Amino acid sequence: MLSLDTLNAASKAEFVTLLDGVYEHSPWIAEAAHALKPAGGFQSLPQLKRALAQAVHDAGAEPQLGLVRAHPELAGKAMVSKTLTAESTNEQGKAGLTDCSPEEFAHIQQLNAAYNTKFGFPFVMAVRGPRGQGLHRREIIATFERRLGHPADYELAEALRNIHRIAEIRLNDKFGVEPTLGNLVWDWHEQLSVHTDPGYAELGQLTVTYLTDAHRACAAQIRTLMDECGFDETRIDAVGNVVGVYHGSDPAARRLLTGSHYDTVRNGGKYDGRLGIFVPIACVRELHRAGRRLPFGFEVIGFAEEEGQRYKATFLGSGAVIGQFDTRWLDQADAHGITMRQAMAHAGLDPAKIAAEARDPSKYLGFVEVHIEQGPVLNEMDLPLGIVTSINGSVRYQCEITGMASHAGTTPMDRRRDAAAAAAEVVLYLEKRATSVPDLVGTVGMLQVPNGSINVVPGRCLFSLDIRATTNEVRDECAADTLAEIAAICERRGVAFKAEETMRAAAAPSDPAWQQRWERAVDSLGLPLFRMPSGAGHDAMKLHEVMPQAMLFVRGLNAGISHNPLESITNDDTELCVQAFQRLLDDLAKEQA
Amino acid sequence: MLSLDTLNAASKAEFVTLLDGVYEHSPWIAEAAHALKPAGGFQSLPQLKRALAQAVHDAGAEPQLGLVRAHPELAGKAMVSKTLTAESTNEQGKAGLTDCSPEEFAHIQQLNAAYNTKFGFPFVMAVRGPRGQGLHRREIIATFERRLGHPADYELAEALRNIHRIAEIRLNDKFGVEPTLGNLVWDWHEQLSVHTDPGYAELGQLTVTYLTDAHRACAAQIRTLMDECGFDETRIDAVGNVVGVYHGSDPAARRLLTGSHYDTVRNGGKYDGRLGIFVPIACVRELHRAGRRLPFGFEVIGFAEEEGQRYKATFLGSGAVIGQFDTRWLDQADAHGITMRQAMAHAGLDPAKIAAEARDPSKYLGFVEVHIEQGPVLNEMDLPLGIVTSINGSVRYQCEITGMASHAGTTPMDRRRDAAAAAAEVVLYLEKRATSVPDLVGTVGMLQVPNGSINVVPGRCLFSLDIRATTNEVRDECAADTLAEIAAICERRGVAFKAEETMRAAAAPSDPAWQQRWERAVDSLGLPLFRMPSGAGHDAMKLHEVMPQAMLFVRGLNAGISHNPLESITNDDTELCVQAFQRLLDDLAKEQA
Repeated sequence: MLSLDTLNAASKAEFVTLLDGVYEHSPWIAEAAHALKPAGGFQSLPQLKRALAQAVHDAGAEPQLGLVRAHPELAGKAMVSKTLTAESTNEQGKAGLTDCSPEEFAHIQQLNAAYNTKFGFPFVMAVRGPRGQGLHRREIIATFERRLGHPADYELAEALRNIHRIAEIRLNDKFGVEPTLGNLVWDWHEQLSVHTDPGYAELGQLTVTYLTDAHRACAAQIRTLMDECGFDETRIDAVGNVVGVYHGSDPAARRLLTGSHYDTVRNGGKYDGRLGIFVPIACVRELHRAGRRLPFGFEVIGFAEEEGQRYKATFLGSGAVIGQFDTRWLDQADAHGITMRQAMAHAGLDPAKIAAEARDPSKYLGFVEVHIEQGPVLNEMDLPLGIVTSINGSVRYQCEITGMASHAGTTPMDRRRDAAAAAAEVVLYLEKRATSVPDLVGTVGMLQVPNGSINVVPGRCLFSLDIRATTNEVRDECAADTLAEIAAICERRGVAFKAEETMRAAAAPSDPAWQQRWERAVDSLGLPLFRMPSGAGHDAMKLHEVMPQAMLFVRGLNAGISHNPLESITNDDTELCVQAFQRLLDDLAKEQA
Repeated sequence: MLSLDTLNAASKAEFVTLLDGVYEHSPWIAEAAHALKPAGGFQSLPQLKRALAQAVHDAGAEPQLGLVRAHPELAGKAMVSKTLTAESTNEQGKAGLTDCSPEEFAHIQQLNAAYNTKFGFPFVMAVRGPRGQGLHRREIIATFERRLGHPADYELAEALRNIHRIAEIRLNDKFGVEPTLGNLVWDWHEQLSVHTDPGYAELGQLTVTYLTDAHRACAAQIRTLMDECGFDETRIDAVGNVVGVYHGSDPAARRLLTGSHYDTVRNGGKYDGRLGIFVPIACVRELHRAGRRLPFGFEVIGFAEEEGQRYKATFLGSGAVIGQFDTRWLDQADAHGITMRQAMAHAGLDPAKIAAEARDPSKYLGFVEVHIEQGPVLNEMDLPLGIVTSINGSVRYQCEITGMASHAGTTPMDRRRDAAAAAAEVVLYLEKRATSVPDLVGTVGMLQVPNGSINVVPGRCLFSLDIRATTNEVRDECAADTLAEIAAICERRGVAFKAEETMRAAAAPSDPAWQQRWERAVDSLGLPLFRMPSGAGHDAMKLHEVMPQAMLFVRGLNAGISHNPLESITNDDTELCVQAFQRLLDDLAKEQA
C-alpha cells in the first residue's frame, strides 16, 4: 500500500514510478502533478487527485487527445488481448465485459467503429462506475450508445472525466483507501429507490409523489434508518416530514437544522433531495458510534414534498416547518380525483396539526442543506463540491405573438407579419441580455408555431421565458428589459403579443457566516473553494424566510443532468460530502463550546 | 344616369357634385381625382375608380383617417337613424342589417364598442359584398369579429379598401353599369362549389379531390357548361381533364391553349384554379353569341388535378397534357386504401390512354392562364389585375438542430447548447437574406422545440425552410447561403444539424411576347400595369416545359388569403379579367389575321 507520506517524500522520478498505471501510458501527468505538490506535501488524497486532473487540464488539447488515444477500445470477450493494460483488463472484467454474447460483442464492435469514425479517438468509460464495483454490460452499452450522440468537444471532455474517475478508483486501490461512508450513503439511496409509485415500477422508473404508498414506505424507511443510526427522537410529523433529533450535550440547547426532500419528480433521479437527508444521518451515525455529543442539538428533516408533482403546491414539507400551509390546498384533487385532505386522512395525518409544526426560529442556530448540483458546472470543472452563494430568484412567463398567417410563396418579405421571426428576435435578445450579467440566466424553453406549415408564414408563435438571478433586482431588470424589447420588436413588426407571468420566487442569498462554515469545511479537505449560485429552487429557500441558511453542492455526473434517471453521483464525492458536513459540525462545536 | 362623357366635360365643381355621395362626406376625394384626369378624359370607369383610390392613397394618413371616421357605425335595427346617409341606409338594408334580432343587435353594439376602443375609428364594411347583392347578417358579423383581431395599421388599410369597394358599387349604380360577365362567371363558381367531398358538406367546407364523386360531378358540370356556351367539341379525357375546343375559322389552325384546375385543397376556396376555366368559357360564350370565329383554335382545359391532395402526386392534369404521367403513381393508395388505378377504373378512365393525351406543341400558339393571385399584393395596392413575370422556382428543406437539453436554472449561459437559439439565428438570417433580393422569399413556416419545457434549455429544434425566386439561380444561391450559415451557426454553438431537401421545382419565366399581350390587354382597359412574380405554383409551370406561357393575376380579397374559405374576388374584378382575356383574343386575332 502506498501512503501520502511515502509519495510526499519521493523524488520526482520515484513519484512518477509510484503513480505508474494510474493514467494509461501517460507518465507526463504524474510529472506535471509533481510540480503542483504544495510546499508541505499533499495533505489529502483528494488534493492529489485534483493536482493530477489539473495537470491534464493545463496540458491543453494535444496531450489530452494523446491521453484519450492511449486507451484501448472497449472490448468484448474475444478482444481481451495484450493491448489492454493489466488494470483495464481487470476493470473490464469486473464490468462483466469479458462475458459478452456474440451479439453483444458484434454490437460493441459496431459502436467502437461508429465512435472512432465520429470522434477520432476510442470510447473511454470508467466501467467500474460511480460505486466502484463495476457496471453491468447493459449499462455500459447504453452509455456507449448515448455518448455516441454527443457533440465532439463535449465528448472529449467526457472521456477525460472518465479517465479521471478511472484514476481515482486506481488511486483508491493503490492507497488502500475505501470511501466507506460514501459507499454507505450511496447504498442508502439505492435501498430507498426500490419504492416507486404505481405504474412506474414496471417501467423501471423512480417516481415518489406526496403520500402515495411508495412515499409513505420511504418515510418509514428513513425513520427506521434514523432510529438505527442513534437519533434520540424520530417521528413523522403532521405533513409527512420525517424528523429526527440528535440531542446536544444539553438537550435544551439550540439546534442546527438540516434536511432536504424525499419526494421525486416523475421518472426522476435517486439523489435529488435524498442526499441532503442521508448525509446528515451518516454524520449522526458516526457521532453515535463514537458516543459523542455536540454542544448543540442536531435536527434532521426528510421533507415530505418539494417537487409539486401530485398537487399544484410545492414546498409542502419545508413550508409547514416555517408555518406556511395554505389550508385551501387541502381541497385540491390529484389526477385521480383524490383530494389532498383525503390523501392525508388515508396516511393517518391530521391537517389540523400542521400549524403546530411551525418552528420557533430563536431555538435554531440556522439551516444548512447539501444537495446534488443539478447542473453541469462542477462536473465540467472536475470539482467534487461547490459552495452555494445564493439560491436564484426566478420569474416565468408564457408568451404569445400573433402576426398574420399568409402564403409563403406569394407574400413578399416586406409585407409579412411573421410571428416566428418576432419570437426568434426575442430568443436571441434574452440569450444576449442574460449572458451580459454574471450568474444571470434566461431561457426560452418552449417555442412553437402551432399547426405550422412549410408553406405558410407563421401567424402565431408560443414561447416561454424563464429568468433567474442571484438577486431579485437583477432578475427583475432582465425581465423588464426583455418585456420592453418584446414590445419594441412587436411594434416594429406590426404584430401583437401577450405575456402572462406564471411564477415568481424570491432569491435567497446564503448567510455569510454559514457560507464561510461550508468554505472552511471544504478547504480543510484539501479541495479548492468554488462558489456558485443555485439555479434550481431548494427547501433552503423556505427556511431562508425565517433563519440564516447556506447550502453545499455535490457534483452530478452526466453533465449534471437531474430530474432524469441518468442523475448520478460517485461514492468518492459522497464521502467528501459527509466529511465536509462532519467538519462543519466539528467547527460549530468548537464555536459553541 | 351619369356618363363618362358628361363627367369628362364637367368643370371641377360640377365634377365634385356629380360624384357626390360616392365617398362618405368627403368631397376632397373627387376634387383630388379631378386633378388626376388624363388629358383625353377618363377612358373607362375602372380608370376613374383608380384615380379616386389614388387620390385617397396620395392624401396620406390624416385625411384617410378622417374619411374612415366620416362613416357611420355598423347599425342594427334600432340604429337606422339620421346619422346614416341615404346610400348607407340602403346598403345596410340590402344586407338585412335592418332586420336584426335583439341578441344580434346587442352583439353588434358590443363589437362596435370593442372595435372603436381598439382602433379609434368605426368599423366600415362593404356590406353589399363581392357580388354586390348584399351579404347575410351572419357573414357581416363573422367578418366584424375577424377584423377585430387585425393589427391596427392593417385594419385601417382594410377599412379604406372597403370604402373603395363601396365607392365602386355606388359608381356602378350612378353610371348604370352592371358587370354582367363578371356576375355570370362569379355565379358559375358558386354553382360549382355545391360539389364537395364526403364529410365536408356537413362542415360547410369545399373539398374536391381527384376522382371523387364530387370531382366527377364538377367535371360533368363544366363540360355541360362548355356545351351550353357553344364549344364545338367537349370531352373528358383519360386523366379526367375537361377539354373544350372552339374551332378557328379554319378548324385545322393552330390553337391557343388555356385552362386551370378544378380540384381544390381540403377546406379550400372557390376561385383557386376554377377562375382560369370559367373566364375563357365566358369568352367563348360571347364569341359564339356573336357568331364570331377567330383565325386560331381556342382550347380550354379544366385540369383534373393540381393540388396533390388525394395522392402523393401533383399536376396530374397538366402533366398528362405535356406527356408526363408516371405509371408508378397508379399503385399509390389514398387514405382509404383506394389505389389511383382503382379510382380511375371507378371513374371509367383508362390509364393506358393517358399517354395519347400528350399534345404536339407545334400545333399550339402558346398557353395562357388566369388565376387568383393567392397573395396580398394586388389587394394592398388597390389593383384588380397583375401581370405575372415568372412562376417562382422553389426548394424546401426539413431541418433539425440537436444541442443538449439541460436545466434552465443551473446551466450557465456560456455552457449551453441551445438548439432553439441556433434555430432562431437561422430564422432571422433567412429573413434578412431573402429581403435583400427583390422577388426572393424565404420562410421558416414550421418551428418547434419538441416536448419543450419552460425550465429546460432546448436540446432539439425542428424547422422548415421554403425558398422561392423568379430564377433557379437566385433560389439556389439563397439556399446555399442559408445552409452554409446554418453550418456556421451550429459550428459556433457546438450543436449538430441535419437538413433534408423535400421539394424542388424549377422557375418558369413568362414568355416575353405572351406577357406583352397580357400587358396590352390590361392597358387597354385603362388600368395601370403591375408586373409581379407568382409565388405559388400553377399548371402553367407544366405547360412551360413544352410551349411559351404567360399568366394574368386577379386580386384576392382578405389580404389575398387562399387555400381557405375566406378566399374571395369581386364581380367587378372578374368582369375586368374577362374583358382582358377578350382583348388578348382580339389582339391575337389581328396578329394572326
